[in-house]
Amino acid sequence: MKPLLIRGGTVINADREFRADVLCADGRIAQVAPSITAPAGAEVLDAGGRYVMPGGIDPHTHMQLPFMGTVTRDDFYSGTAAGLAGGTTMIIDFVIPDPKEPLMAAFRKWRGWAEKAASDYSFHVAVTWWDQSVHADMGLLVQEEGVNSFKHFMAYKNAIMCDDETLVNSFRRALELGAMPTVHAENGELVFLLQGETKNKGITGPEGHPLSRPPAVEAEAAQRAIAIADVINVPIYIVHVSSAESADAIARARARGQRVYGEVLAGHLVLDDSVYRDPRFEFAAGHVMSPPFRPKGHSQMLWRGLQAGYLHTTATDHCTFCAEQKAAGREDFTKIPNGCGGVEERMSVIWHEGVNGGRLTPTEFVALTSANAAKLFNIYPRKGCVVEGADADLVLWDPQATKTFSAKTQRSLGDFNVFEGRTVQGVATHTVAAGKLVYADGDLRAERGAGKYVKRPAFGAQ
Amino acid sequence: MKPLLIRGGTVINADREFRADVLCADGRIAQVAPSITAPAGAEVLDAGGRYVMPGGIDPHTHMQLPFMGTVTRDDFYSGTAAGLAGGTTMIIDFVIPDPKEPLMAAFRKWRGWAEKAASDYSFHVAVTWWDQSVHADMGLLVQEEGVNSFKHFMAYKNAIMCDDETLVNSFRRALELGAMPTVHAENGELVFLLQGETKNKGITGPEGHPLSRPPAVEAEAAQRAIAIADVINVPIYIVHVSSAESADAIARARARGQRVYGEVLAGHLVLDDSVYRDPRFEFAAGHVMSPPFRPKGHSQMLWRGLQAGYLHTTATDHCTFCAEQKAAGREDFTKIPNGCGGVEERMSVIWHEGVNGGRLTPTEFVALTSANAAKLFNIYPRKGCVVEGADADLVLWDPQATKTFSAKTQRSLGDFNVFEGRTVQGVATHTVAAGKLVYADGDLRAERGAGKYVKRPAFGAQ
Amino acid sequence: MKPLLIRGGTVINADREFRADVLCADGRIAQVAPSITAPAGAEVLDAGGRYVMPGGIDPHTHMQLPFMGTVTRDDFYSGTAAGLAGGTTMIIDFVIPDPKEPLMAAFRKWRGWAEKAASDYSFHVAVTWWDQSVHADMGLLVQEEGVNSFKHFMAYKNAIMCDDETLVNSFRRALELGAMPTVHAENGELVFLLQGETKNKGITGPEGHPLSRPPAVEAEAAQRAIAIADVINVPIYIVHVSSAESADAIARARARGQRVYGEVLAGHLVLDDSVYRDPRFEFAAGHVMSPPFRPKGHSQMLWRGLQAGYLHTTATDHCTFCAEQKAAGREDFTKIPNGCGGVEERMSVIWHEGVNGGRLTPTEFVALTSANAAKLFNIYPRKGCVVEGADADLVLWDPQATKTFSAKTQRSLGDFNVFEGRTVQGVATHTVAAGKLVYADGDLRAERGAGKYVKRPAFGAQ
Amino acid sequence: MKPLLIRGGTVINADREFRADVLCADGRIAQVAPSITAPAGAEVLDAGGRYVMPGGIDPHTHMQLPFMGTVTRDDFYSGTAAGLAGGTTMIIDFVIPDPKEPLMAAFRKWRGWAEKAASDYSFHVAVTWWDQSVHADMGLLVQEEGVNSFKHFMAYKNAIMCDDETLVNSFRRALELGAMPTVHAENGELVFLLQGETKNKGITGPEGHPLSRPPAVEAEAAQRAIAIADVINVPIYIVHVSSAESADAIARARARGQRVYGEVLAGHLVLDDSVYRDPRFEFAAGHVMSPPFRPKGHSQMLWRGLQAGYLHTTATDHCTFCAEQKAAGREDFTKIPNGCGGVEERMSVIWHEGVNGGRLTPTEFVALTSANAAKLFNIYPRKGCVVEGADADLVLWDPQATKTFSAKTQRSLGDFNVFEGRTVQGVATHTVAAGKLVYADGDLRAERGAGKYVKRPAFGAQ
Ligand SMILES: [Zn+2]
Ligand SMILES: [Zn+2]
Ligand SMILES: [Zn+2]
Ligand SMILES: [Zn+2]
Ligand SMILES: [Zn+2]
Ligand SMILES: [Zn+2]
Ligand SMILES: [Zn+2]
Ligand SMILES: [Zn+2]
Repeated sequence: MKPLLIRGGTVINADREFRADVLCADGRIAQVAPSITAPAGAEVLDAGGRYVMPGGIDPHTHMQLPFMGTVTRDDFYSGTAAGLAGGTTMIIDFVIPDPKEPLMAAFRKWRGWAEKAASDYSFHVAVTWWDQSVHADMGLLVQEEGVNSFKHFMAYKNAIMCDDETLVNSFRRALELGAMPTVHAENGELVFLLQGETKNKGITGPEGHPLSRPPAVEAEAAQRAIAIADVINVPIYIVHVSSAESADAIARARARGQRVYGEVLAGHLVLDDSVYRDPRFEFAAGHVMSPPFRPKGHSQMLWRGLQAGYLHTTATDHCTFCAEQKAAGREDFTKIPNGCGGVEERMSVIWHEGVNGGRLTPTEFVALTSANAAKLFNIYPRKGCVVEGADADLVLWDPQATKTFSAKTQRSLGDFNVFEGRTVQGVATHTVAAGKLVYADGDLRAERGAGKYVKRPAFGAQ
Repeated sequence: MKPLLIRGGTVINADREFRADVLCADGRIAQVAPSITAPAGAEVLDAGGRYVMPGGIDPHTHMQLPFMGTVTRDDFYSGTAAGLAGGTTMIIDFVIPDPKEPLMAAFRKWRGWAEKAASDYSFHVAVTWWDQSVHADMGLLVQEEGVNSFKHFMAYKNAIMCDDETLVNSFRRALELGAMPTVHAENGELVFLLQGETKNKGITGPEGHPLSRPPAVEAEAAQRAIAIADVINVPIYIVHVSSAESADAIARARARGQRVYGEVLAGHLVLDDSVYRDPRFEFAAGHVMSPPFRPKGHSQMLWRGLQAGYLHTTATDHCTFCAEQKAAGREDFTKIPNGCGGVEERMSVIWHEGVNGGRLTPTEFVALTSANAAKLFNIYPRKGCVVEGADADLVLWDPQATKTFSAKTQRSLGDFNVFEGRTVQGVATHTVAAGKLVYADGDLRAERGAGKYVKRPAFGAQ
Repeated sequence: MKPLLIRGGTVINADREFRADVLCADGRIAQVAPSITAPAGAEVLDAGGRYVMPGGIDPHTHMQLPFMGTVTRDDFYSGTAAGLAGGTTMIIDFVIPDPKEPLMAAFRKWRGWAEKAASDYSFHVAVTWWDQSVHADMGLLVQEEGVNSFKHFMAYKNAIMCDDETLVNSFRRALELGAMPTVHAENGELVFLLQGETKNKGITGPEGHPLSRPPAVEAEAAQRAIAIADVINVPIYIVHVSSAESADAIARARARGQRVYGEVLAGHLVLDDSVYRDPRFEFAAGHVMSPPFRPKGHSQMLWRGLQAGYLHTTATDHCTFCAEQKAAGREDFTKIPNGCGGVEERMSVIWHEGVNGGRLTPTEFVALTSANAAKLFNIYPRKGCVVEGADADLVLWDPQATKTFSAKTQRSLGDFNVFEGRTVQGVATHTVAAGKLVYADGDLRAERGAGKYVKRPAFGAQ
Repeated sequence: MKPLLIRGGTVINADREFRADVLCADGRIAQVAPSITAPAGAEVLDAGGRYVMPGGIDPHTHMQLPFMGTVTRDDFYSGTAAGLAGGTTMIIDFVIPDPKEPLMAAFRKWRGWAEKAASDYSFHVAVTWWDQSVHADMGLLVQEEGVNSFKHFMAYKNAIMCDDETLVNSFRRALELGAMPTVHAENGELVFLLQGETKNKGITGPEGHPLSRPPAVEAEAAQRAIAIADVINVPIYIVHVSSAESADAIARARARGQRVYGEVLAGHLVLDDSVYRDPRFEFAAGHVMSPPFRPKGHSQMLWRGLQAGYLHTTATDHCTFCAEQKAAGREDFTKIPNGCGGVEERMSVIWHEGVNGGRLTPTEFVALTSANAAKLFNIYPRKGCVVEGADADLVLWDPQATKTFSAKTQRSLGDFNVFEGRTVQGVATHTVAAGKLVYADGDLRAERGAGKYVKRPAFGAQ
C-alpha cells in the first residue's frame, strides 16, 4: 500500500483546528505537520480549501439484523460502504442474543456476519436475560474479546426487555469488569399498555406509533437507568435520547456529578412527529422507529444538550427495512418493523444544521461525530483524532459543496430515506480508511472485508 | 348524649382563624358562631386562650399488623386511643393482602379487627398482586365499600412488591374507578442488591439499614410511579416522602401541572440517620423503619415542601414493635421488623417545629394535619373542618402548654418512642370525637368500639 | 335596603361546594344554610341550577390612569361598572406617584378620583423613588390608610423605574411595616437597549413590541426581585407573570420554601404573540401591553402554575386606551400607550378555559378569582368567601349559559376587546355588591359612588 | 538558550495521556515523540515515573494591586515566581481603572508594573464606568492590545460597582468586538444593606463578613449577568463561583444552550465558612475575601460542576495582604482588605482533592488547570497543550511526592496561607517556562522580567 499525503488542508480535531499536511502510511497516520514532503511513491491528495477531520464513528447501527425470519436490507458490507460514502469510517453495531441464547454464541455469530465489512467495526453486546452463564460470558467478552459496553433494552415486552433484576445484575457486573452499561430507554410496560389502548380506540395506522411511545415513557426509563447506575456507581450511556424530558434527566444527573452520557440520532435532530400523520402508509411507516420522532420543540432541546455538553455523541440507529418489510404492519402499527437509515447522511446532516446553523463550531462537530464516541468507548486517540500514530481513518470535508439526499441515489440498500429531498451544504469529498482512499468525489471504492474488528479495552475494573 | 358547647376559643380552619363558640350535638357540629347560648343540659367546655381545631387525621397507620407470626403491639383500640390522647380523631390504616389473597377477603379481615377502634377509621387497600379477581375486587371496594385509594409497595422483593406490570394495571383500574393510587416508593431490586452488598461487607447491625436504602433508591421509585401515573393520567399520592430527591421529583411533576401529592412523616421531619449509628442495638433498631431517617439536610427540604405546598399531608406510619420483636434482627439488620410509633405525638411535634419554629401558620398547620388529608381522600368537610354539619371531631389546643415525650408515659403499647425526651410546646388539652369528650387534661376516656368505619366516596370515574 | 335571599343555588368556596341558600342583609351575608325562610320584605332570587360564588376580585387594574396628558378611557365608575357586569365586585388599583411626588399626595389624589366607583376598591401604592419622606409615607399608608402592599416597576427607564437601591430600601421598609412588596418584573435597561436595537433594524411597528421585551427580560427581573426579597426575608408578589421562565423562577423559589406569589392575567392565559404580527395597526396596537403576549407554549406553563399552586391569582391589568390614543405610536411602537381591557371578561374567560377545559375544579376557580387575592391582601374572609358575616359581594354563575365578547357590546368605555369574537360558556347572570343586586340578566344597575374604599390591615410587622 | 529534553515521562493533555519525550528549543516545544535523541548541547531532564503537563494557567490574580494607599504584598515578580514554584507558568491579572479613569491609561499603568514578571501574563480589563471614551478604549484594547476579556464588578457599591446600564452597554460592546465579558457576581446593593444590618446588630468582627454576603447575593448577580448576556447573545464567564446556587444558575443557563462559563477558586473547593468564627482575628481576617468561603456542602457542588462540565476553570484570585494591612478592619469587618493567596498552591490542591480524591481524571485536571482557560481566552494551543509549536511552558508532576503548605515556607510574600498545614500528595518537581528550567526540586530560578505579555486575539466579532 503506497503512502498517502493529504496536502494543504486544515486539520480539525476536537480541541482545535490548524493548518497541516497529513501523511498516511501502513494504515496509520505517519505525520501531521505544516508542510510535509511527499515520500517516494506517495499518492498526493490536494485538500486546499477543505477540512481534514477524523473519520466519523457511528456508535449505533444495526446491520444485517435478523428480524421475523428476514433481515435488514443492509448487511455489514453495504452498510459500512454507505458509511464510507458519507465520511463515516467506523461503526459500533450490536450483538443481540435471543433470551436464553448464550452471549458468546451470539457474539460469534455476529462476528462471522461482520467479516464482510468495508470499514472497521466493533460491537456492543446486549444483555437480554440473566443467569450465571451471562455473568460468566460478560467476563469473557470484556477480558478476551474487546467488548467494553453492554446494551439493555428497557422496552420490547415479551421479547428482549430487561426487568429491573436483570438491569441491576448486569450493571453490577459491568462495574466489576470496567465496562459501560448502555440502555434503550423506554418503559416497556407502558408501551404495551398504550399500544393496546391506542388500538382499542381504533387507531391502527402508523399515527398510532408515537401515541404509544410518548416522551414520558422514555423519560421514565432514562431516569430509572440513571438511578440504578447511580446507586451502583457505574457510568451509563443512554442511546438515542430523543426527548426534552429525557435530556433533562441526563442534565440533572450530571449536575450531581454523575457520569452519564447521552447519544442523539441525526434523525431526531431534524425531524418531527408530523411524518406519522402523512396519509401515505409507506411514507409514515418508513419513519417508524423507536423512540419515534417527537413533537416540534424537542429537537431544539437535543441541540441544546449537544451544545451544553450534557449530550455527547451522534449516531443513526441505522436499521433499514424496505417497503415490503414495513408492510407487515399495514393493519397494525405495532407490527411495522422499527428502523430507519442514516449512516451515509449523518455527518452532513449534523454539519449543515449544526455548524452552518450556528449551533456548533467545527471542533465541536468533530467531538460529536467521532472523538467523543472514541473516548467513551476507549479507542481514543487510535480513532477520533488526527494525530501521529492514530489509525488513518480520515475524511476530507468541503464546507462549500452541497448535496441532496434521496433514496434513489443513496448507497444504502434500503428503499427509503428519512432525509429525502433535503439539501445540505458541507460534504465529504474523500474518505480514507486505514490509509486507503475508499471514496473520492463520488467514486466509492469500498472493499468487501477490508474492515477490521476493533477491540475496545476495558476501563479500570473494580 | 348531651350536647357539648365549647366556649370562648379561637377556631382555626385551613383557610382562616376566627373567634367562635362551637356547639356539638348528636355527633355533629350543630353551630359555629361568635356567641352561643348553651342548650339545656349541655356540657360546657371553656376554651379561653385556646384554639379549637379539627381533630387530626393520620392518613398512614398500621394497627394490629400481622408480621412473622406476631402482630404489632398496638391494636386498633390501643392505637386509636393513643391518637385521641394526642388530638388525632381519625386514622386511615391499610389492608394488606398477601400475594394471591383475594382483596375482599383481606378487607373483611381487617374490618373485623378494626371494630374495636376508639376513633373513626378508614382503609387504603394494598394491591400486592394482579389478576382479574383483583380487578373485580377493586371495583367492589370502590363502589360498595367506600374505598377510594389503593396502596402499592415498590419495595419488599419476594414479598408484597409490585412489578411495573401490576402498577400499570392497578393505576389504570384506579383511573376507571375514580380512586387514588398511592405508593411506598423504594426500588425493591436496589434494596435487595444493597442489603446483600452491605452484609457482604460485614455490616450486619442497624447501621446497615440506611446504607441499604439510600435516597436515590426512593427517588427512583417515586419518579417511576409519578411517570406511570402521568402516562395513565391518574392522580397519585406518595406516602412517607423522606428525602430531598423524592420531594424534588414531586415538585417537578407538579410544575408540569400533574396532580401529584406527597405525605411526610413526623419522624422524618425531626430526626436524622445518626440514630442508626448509636451503639445500643435497642435504640438503633427502635428507629428502623423504611424509608429510614435521612442525613441532616433532608428534613429541611421536607419542611420546604410543606411550606411551598408541594407536600400535602403529615402522617406517622405508626407501626409499633417492641424490643423483643426488634431483636429478631440482632444478627441481621434486614430481619429487624420495620416500624416506629408516633400517632400520639404527631400533632405536637408538627406544631412545635412548624408553628413555633416559624415555618407554618396555624391555618397551614390545620391544612397539613387534617384538612388536606380529608380533601385528598374525599371526606371533607365532614372531616378536617370546623363547620356546621361536620362530624364533631375536634381538638382544643393550648399553644402555651408543654409536654415531654417518653415511652414511659405514652399511651401506645409500644415500649419505644422515637421522640423520647423531646419537649414540645403546643399540646392537645381536650379531644372531642363524635361529639364526646374523649380526652381531657390527661384523662383519656377512649371507648373500645366507639369508632366507626368511614366510607370514602369515589372521585369522578373515567 | 331590603334583604336579599338567594335560594336554591350551590355555593362554591375555595375549599368546597355545597347546597345552600344565602341571605344578605345590611350589606353583609346574614346566613348561609340549606334552607332559609325569606324574611319579611326580602327580595328572593332563584339560583336553581346555578352556582353562588364570592364576587370576583381583580387585584390589578388601572382606572382613570393619567398618561401623556390624557387618561385611560375607563374611569373608576365605568371600569368598576364593567367589572360588576362580569361578576367582579372589587378591584385593587394602583396609586402611581411621579418621581419626587410625595406618596401621600398621590394617594389622596387617587382616593378622590375613586370616589365615583360603583364597586368596592382598594389601592396598591407604587414606590417610584426613594428618600426619607417615602420611608415615612409608607408608614402612614400602612398604619393609617389601610395600604398593605407596595408596587415597584422594574421597567420604564427614565420614568418610574426603580433601581436596586430603591427596591432594597422599599422591601426592607415593607418588612418592617408588615406590608407586601409587589413588582412589575421586566429589566428596564434591557428593554431600553432592545427598543433601540429593534428600531435601528427598521422595525417601528407593533411587531417590534414583543421583540423588545422577550421572556428573558421578564425572568431576569423576577429572579432579581425574588432574590432581594429572599435576602430581606419579606414575602413578594409578582404581578402579571407572563412567561414560562418567570413562572419557573417562582416555582424554584417556592421549592426553597420562600413565600413568593404570582399573578396571571386572563389575556396571557389565552392569547399569543401572533397578534402583533397582524397587518392592521389598530388590531396589533390594541394588544400592546407589557409584558406582551408570548409565543405559543407559554400559556400552557401559566395554566400549569395555577394548577400546581405556584401561581395564585388572576387579574387583568385593565387599562384601556382607544384607537386614537394608541395611534400616538403609529410611527414608533415604543410610543403606543401600553394597556388592554378585561375586567368584564376575566371571570368567564378563566371559567371557560379553566373549568370547561379540564384544568381547574370550580373550587380552584374561586380560589384563583377571589379567595387567594383576598387572603394575600389580608381581607379574607370579608371578601372572597361565602360565609356569614362577610361582605355580601356575590355572583350567580350559570355554567350552561354562553356569551360572545365584543367591543361593540362591552360595558368598558374602551373601543377594543382583546377577546373579540370569543365565545365562552359560563357566565355571571346576577351580581350582588354590598347586598344589592347590581347586575341581573344583562341589566346593569351600577351606581356611581356606591363602592367603598377597603382598608387592608397590615400583616404582622417586624 | 540550550535545548531542553524531557525524557521518559508521560505526557498529559486535556484529551489523553501518552508516553513521550518532549524537546524544547527557542522557547517552544520542538518535538513530542516516543523517543527523542538529545540534540547536541541539550540539557536532559529525566521525567521517569512522572507526568509532563502544560504549565498551569491561573486566570484570576491580583498582583501589585493598589489599595487604600498601599498595595498587595506580592508584586508581579514575587507573585509570578510563587506561581512558577507551584507549576503555574502564566497568570491573567486585572487592569482595574478607577471610575472616570481612562481604560487605556490604566492599561498602560498595569503594563508597566507587570514588566518585572517572571512568567508570562495577560490582562482582563475592568469596565468600572461608562461613556463614549470607554466604548472607544474597549475597541483599542481588543484590536491593538490583545485584550479579549473585560471584567465587571457587580459589588463594591460607591466604588467600582457597575450598574445595569454599564453592564448592558459593555456587554453589547464586547459582542461587537468579539470579546468575553466576565463578572464578579455579587449584588452590591444587598451587600451594602447587609453590612449595615450586621453592624447594627453589633457584629463587627470577621464573622460578620459571610453574614453580609450570603449565597443568595451571589446567585442573584450571577443570574442577572447571565440573563443580560443571554439577551445580548454574548458568551459570559463568571469568576470565582463559590456557591451551589450560583453554580446551579450556570447549569440551568447552559442547559438552554447558552454559552456560559464558570471559574472556581482552589480555596472555595476545600475551605468552609467556619474559618470566620475562629476567635483569632488574624486567622479569621486572613480568610476574608469575596465571595467568602461558604457553609459546608457548597464545595461539593462546585466539584460536581467541574466534574459535570458546567464549571470550567480553576483559579486563585491571588491577592495578598499581610496582617498589618488586614488589621485596618479590626474594629469593622467591612474595612478588612479582601484577599487571600494561592497561586503557588492551586495545582497541588486541585490534584490532591480532585485526582487523588477520585473526582477527576488526570486529563480533566489538565483541562481544569490550563487547557480550558487557554481555550476560553483564545490562546490555545499556544498555551495549555503539550504539542509541537506550543510555548514551552511545562510542569513535571510527581504524583507520589508530598508537600505541606505553610506561610513560613511559601514563596509568596504574604504572611498568611489559607492552606496552612495541609499536606498534599502530587507536586510539581520541575517547572519549565519558555523552554527554561525555572524551578527544579525546590530550587526556584525565577528571573525578574523574563515573563512576556501575551496578546489574546479577539473571537469572531459581530
Ligand atoms: Zn433502540
Ligand atoms: Zn438500536
Ligand atoms: Zn411504607
Ligand atoms: Zn406504612
Ligand atoms: Zn405592569
Ligand atoms: Zn399594571
Ligand atoms: Zn472578585
Ligand atoms: Zn478578583
